[in-house]
Amino acid sequence: MDPQLDQEVIKTAAAHDGPIETDAVIIGAGPVGLFQVFELGLLEIKAHVIDSLAYPGGQPVELYPDKPIYDIPAVPVCTGQELTDALLKQIEPFGATFHLGQTVTVVERQEDGRFWVETSRGTRFLTRTIFIAAGVGAFEPRLLKVDGLDKFDGTQLFYRVKNPADFAGRNLVIVGGGDSALDWALNFAGEGPNKAESVILIHRRDGFQAAPASVARMHELCENHEMQFLVGQVTGYEEKDGRLTGAKVTGSDGVTRVVPLDVLLVFFGLSPKLGPIADWGLEIERKQLVVDTEKFSTNVPGIFAVGDINTYPGKKKLILSGFHECALAAFGAAPIVFPEKGKIHLQYTTTSPRLHKVLGVESPVFD
Amino acid sequence: MDPQLDQEVIKTAAAHDGPIETDAVIIGAGPVGLFQVFELGLLEIKAHVIDSLAYPGGQPVELYPDKPIYDIPAVPVCTGQELTDALLKQIEPFGATFHLGQTVTVVERQEDGRFWVETSRGTRFLTRTIFIAAGVGAFEPRLLKVDGLDKFDGTQLFYRVKNPADFAGRNLVIVGGGDSALDWALNFAGEGPNKAESVILIHRRDGFQAAPASVARMHELCENHEMQFLVGQVTGYEEKDGRLTGAKVTGSDGVTRVVPLDVLLVFFGLSPKLGPIADWGLEIERKQLVVDTEKFSTNVPGIFAVGDINTYPGKKKLILSGFHECALAAFGAAPIVFPEKGKIHLQYTTTSPRLHKVLGVESPVFD
Repeated sequence: MDPQLDQEVIKTAAAHDGPIETDAVIIGAGPVGLFQVFELGLLEIKAHVIDSLAYPGGQPVELYPDKPIYDIPAVPVCTGQELTDALLKQIEPFGATFHLGQTVTVVERQEDGRFWVETSRGTRFLTRTIFIAAGVGAFEPRLLKVDGLDKFDGTQLFYRVKNPADFAGRNLVIVGGGDSALDWALNFAGEGPNKAESVILIHRRDGFQAAPASVARMHELCENHEMQFLVGQVTGYEEKDGRLTGAKVTGSDGVTRVVPLDVLLVFFGLSPKLGPIADWGLEIERKQLVVDTEKFSTNVPGIFAVGDINTYPGKKKLILSGFHECALAAFGAAPIVFPEKGKIHLQYTTTSPRLHKVLGVESPVFD
Repeated sequence: MDPQLDQEVIKTAAAHDGPIETDAVIIGAGPVGLFQVFELGLLEIKAHVIDSLAYPGGQPVELYPDKPIYDIPAVPVCTGQELTDALLKQIEPFGATFHLGQTVTVVERQEDGRFWVETSRGTRFLTRTIFIAAGVGAFEPRLLKVDGLDKFDGTQLFYRVKNPADFAGRNLVIVGGGDSALDWALNFAGEGPNKAESVILIHRRDGFQAAPASVARMHELCENHEMQFLVGQVTGYEEKDGRLTGAKVTGSDGVTRVVPLDVLLVFFGLSPKLGPIADWGLEIERKQLVVDTEKFSTNVPGIFAVGDINTYPGKKKLILSGFHECALAAFGAAPIVFPEKGKIHLQYTTTSPRLHKVLGVESPVFD
């Protein structure tokens, strides 16, 4: 047996068995969480980043990927996606590890001062510091509130489309008036590989918060009888032999009709949840974590909070404030990560050869 | 006489006679001063900007226009000039007025609560608020310290070249080891329109903090006897009939020689001076203005300090921190500028029709 290969196997096995030991865990991969990677990176602190969403970018990408943002300093205009892409490029040199599609479920202080962190997917960490950059909390889909309907969640009721092929050839009822509802309705009604047997779009009014082109296309498909659009709200359901068979839809005329279906897709947008963060013993004021303005530390030493989730006198929920908070939090964390180093001096990216090295760029040579 | 024209003439005359009445004066047109225009603009507060330099951009443009900066959030890399250009573009909608090449000499509180501000060029303002974004102070050239030499300042001793033609055909001694010294030596030694009679470059060591190509070109000119380079320091001077005739240069061998000259050009870089700001009754700690972290107000209500010139617990002299400070200072100033308005609510550039209007961009229309 190749001894080197053997060693690799053992290493991998160990990595699966034990927790990931690290200096910093960042909760939240929105703009502020991403920039926290950068500020820690400049101080040579490597970070693991956890987010409930399946991709980095947080609120701007999730809620308004294409809407222009005008108040990022020195960036006259950008979209949420462009902002995220620029930040991802900026943090590239620091090799952060992302753990996406999972929320943090456990945070416990260990005897050695480190924190034990566990996620909903079972990823486990032992970390010296934690940076909560969770914005307004983890995003969860807003639910369709009809008594008893939740028992079909994941079998016939869905709030997200993971694999579109699952819905091909089915009778779909899609509820919602935003881009997600429209986009999926067009996707399943059109002549694509995932064409459904039938598509009925339901929205509480004849007006959409979606791209005008999508709305126009939807009306066109309706005129061609390739899909239907009903104004109304889902107020009940019908079932037979444990299977969901229809949605009761109450129209603006007050009349309730039953719309038959195989699958109910609901797109009511996302709503934030502070979730288990509320249970970690951190001082909370009106759903926000109380921090100081020197290190942006919570009342638990080693746990910092940056961005929209924190509060302090004068706090404004601006991305640019989160960026500043990341910088000071990184300096606040350095003595915990490197207790032996003493005071950490500020260096400048324009002139510091050490920072050029960590950034992976060449220093100009002066003799 | 055209009555409308007459009125125009009267208006213009009045503008020249009286002070400029405004809501905000920003002292310093560096990145942070420029972004202060933006944050005030979002709150519909118009600003006048004063800077000692003849152009906006401050320290990054003055000290390292071409050096890459890596730590502006969401801007993976930019030069000082690019940063300035981006900020100027971003503040365009707000029509700030710039008063360049002048320093503030007087700040006095008036009986009505406003501040009387005067500059070295005689520009006068009556303003409700002042934002000091003066970085490390106004930049002044570092002086060549030789007793008695300063009496030639402006006649035969110069720290800047305003009109290169003034030096054509003269015997020049140029002192310094940076880009300015090299560039001017090459300019006056070369075959250009301002060619000097002779050029002698003096630097304390045979090593330069300048573009390698310029250093190579200088050595080439020396080899061709088109200029001279001496290692040494100017330690004295000779004069005759009230005119400077030579510089005493002490070499690394300890020997002092006299180098004859018509003009002495000194390029030792710029050094910051807090200047009259020190006399405005503001609380100062180690040459920095003490501010709170809620509004970034100094101890004088109505006078705010942002960027490198301020200090508070945890302060790091980072441009990105200055940006955050601008935002909170603007919110701090709003109740002074609009005492009738009550609490100013934060709005977002992505969604606020009011902000879209002040930014001069169109709001997306949803029905």
